[in-house]
Amino acid sequence: MRALQYISARTVNPVDIDPTAPGTGQVQIRVAYAGLCGTDLHIFHGDMDARVAHPLVFGHEMSGVITAVGPDVDGWMPGDRVTVMPLDWDGTCPACLAGNEHICQNLDFIGIDSPGALQELWNVPAATLVRLPEELTLRAGALVEPVAVAVHDVRRSELAAGDTAVVIGGGPIGVLIASVARNEGADVVVIEPDAGRRATIDGLGFRTLDPLATDQAEWVQEWTRGAGADVVFEVSGAAAAVRGMTALAKVRGTIVVVAIHPQPREVDLQRVFWRELRLLGARVYQRRDFETAVELLTAGAIPADTLITDVVPLERTGDAFTALEAGQALKLLVAVGGDQ
Amino acid sequence: MRALQYISARTVNPVDIDPTAPGTGQVQIRVAYAGLCGTDLHIFHGDMDARVAHPLVFGHEMSGVITAVGPDVDGWMPGDRVTVMPLDWDGTCPACLAGNEHICQNLDFIGIDSPGALQELWNVPAATLVRLPEELTLRAGALVEPVAVAVHDVRRSELAAGDTAVVIGGGPIGVLIASVARNEGADVVVIEPDAGRRATIDGLGFRTLDPLATDQAEWVQEWTRGAGADVVFEVSGAAAAVRGMTALAKVRGTIVVVAIHPQPREVDLQRVFWRELRLLGARVYQRRDFETAVELLTAGAIPADTLITDVVPLERTGDAFTALEAGQALKLLVAVGGDQ
Repeated sequence: MRALQYISARTVNPVDIDPTAPGTGQVQIRVAYAGLCGTDLHIFHGDMDARVAHPLVFGHEMSGVITAVGPDVDGWMPGDRVTVMPLDWDGTCPACLAGNEHICQNLDFIGIDSPGALQELWNVPAATLVRLPEELTLRAGALVEPVAVAVHDVRRSELAAGDTAVVIGGGPIGVLIASVARNEGADVVVIEPDAGRRATIDGLGFRTLDPLATDQAEWVQEWTRGAGADVVFEVSGAAAAVRGMTALAKVRGTIVVVAIHPQPREVDLQRVFWRELRLLGARVYQRRDFETAVELLTAGAIPADTLITDVVPLERTGDAFTALEAGQALKLLVAVGGDQ
Repeated sequence: MRALQYISARTVNPVDIDPTAPGTGQVQIRVAYAGLCGTDLHIFHGDMDARVAHPLVFGHEMSGVITAVGPDVDGWMPGDRVTVMPLDWDGTCPACLAGNEHICQNLDFIGIDSPGALQELWNVPAATLVRLPEELTLRAGALVEPVAVAVHDVRRSELAAGDTAVVIGGGPIGVLIASVARNEGADVVVIEPDAGRRATIDGLGFRTLDPLATDQAEWVQEWTRGAGADVVFEVSGAAAAVRGMTALAKVRGTIVVVAIHPQPREVDLQRVFWRELRLLGARVYQRRDFETAVELLTAGAIPADTLITDVVPLERTGDAFTALEAGQALKLLVAVGGDQ
């Protein structure tokens, strides 16, 4: 079968490998679509070489159809349409024992720490499966994982209907957070310096702001009648965004740190103190976030067609990364098996 | 009557001024003791010249006895022993309307933004009064305000009995936070580089750690059996402490930013994200914190005698600041009128 391997920085190779039968507690999935995300791009750049195996079949956003069921698996059968919540926790570390299995201290993130979805037949633990309803296309089903990220971020913020929310960064996760927040009844603005992305986001009916052309703090003050925003999502990963984010939140407002910041960032702790702000880290998702994500996609609350800017064959995954680097693409899918 | 005025950087002058009668809604207090805190030291250094009036009678930690009651004041009479919660909010800003009057966007912090306690007879709004029980000495009563800060910080952290708590910084507020946290049933360690302060804190029965001699992250990992601390209080104001604080907290742990950081600080946001940490700003207090502080001091849960390292007459306030700068003193009181 065909698979895509990460070899080393900037080198990914399509290869033929032999499929294996699903083990005990596993199912085998024929992968339809796999999405590429920022973490996959980090792998492609070689930034995660210390963590990942070489070669690695990566990929963790996907949809597919079960083809075989291993021993000791109940409730699943060939033909079931599924996605995978790609987390495998140890169940014994302090985080797991406290009920935070999703950020287990020894988490196996499937597709990063173990083989992922960029292969035609993929064996995964049955416990990771999430059912996709018939009404949801497999294309849109490949978005469940990133939508679950956004659902988790918004849930963690405790955003309520009627709240004002600022999303800093208009990439795929930013747009998804904006969509989930709007669906919760929030009034949303997306801050994004790229004009092309702003036009796309405008087209989805969101307010947008160019931080290079507008004093964002002043704008948010006016928008919120002097209060500041209820919730701010930092999704840009940019140092300048972090420096400015604390000025956007209201007294006792919440800032959710969604983006990955490989370097320590300067934060205005005086403002955190002065306004009694709350900064929350938010990482991956829990099962209820996956279930909500499936519901939102099925209900059409997520602009899947706008987000998926291209679908490429497995052999063109390297080119897809180049397009992602250029910053214009939003979500790129790899048609591993495509619709079946 | 005698009063102490801040004139300009490093200059405070005892002066004679005429007392005034309390206005409508005010009471007049004969001030017994006034404590000096870090904010007063900032005023003394001239760091707050853009905010404070010149000359300014400052001081906001105090105890005293009511001497006169103005028109339209109910429930108070001469002879009542009191302290003052020195906050005066506008009641109309977005923060006040949301119930966060204590951090009103136009807060008048009495003793900083308006005349304070370093005068023999002080007029304050009756709404700021908090009663001191007969069993509490006026000396210890002057600690109610800083104890209320600590109570607010601990309450904001949602610390629970049995939790592990790390207090970074062993100054007066650090010791008070440690005391309040211990009283809540937490297991506490205080991180403090100064050997003299560590010895004092050891003497109060707390664990202490020298961050220059011990790998604090490794120590906390061992202490908490690999989990990390439930709550971390950043009370040092030091850039290095901020860089290291995120490594001390457990998955979904809480870090309370208590200290004032005039400069933006480098924060490991990757760790905030990875462990889904929660950073909370905590500023001043609410009335319930003052009431709890009175209870704790009255019950002997606060080591007031150890904390009060000296009591000086009004005329020696400048020298007291010099002692505070040297870093050995904990809490210094000015005997404005002393016991009466």
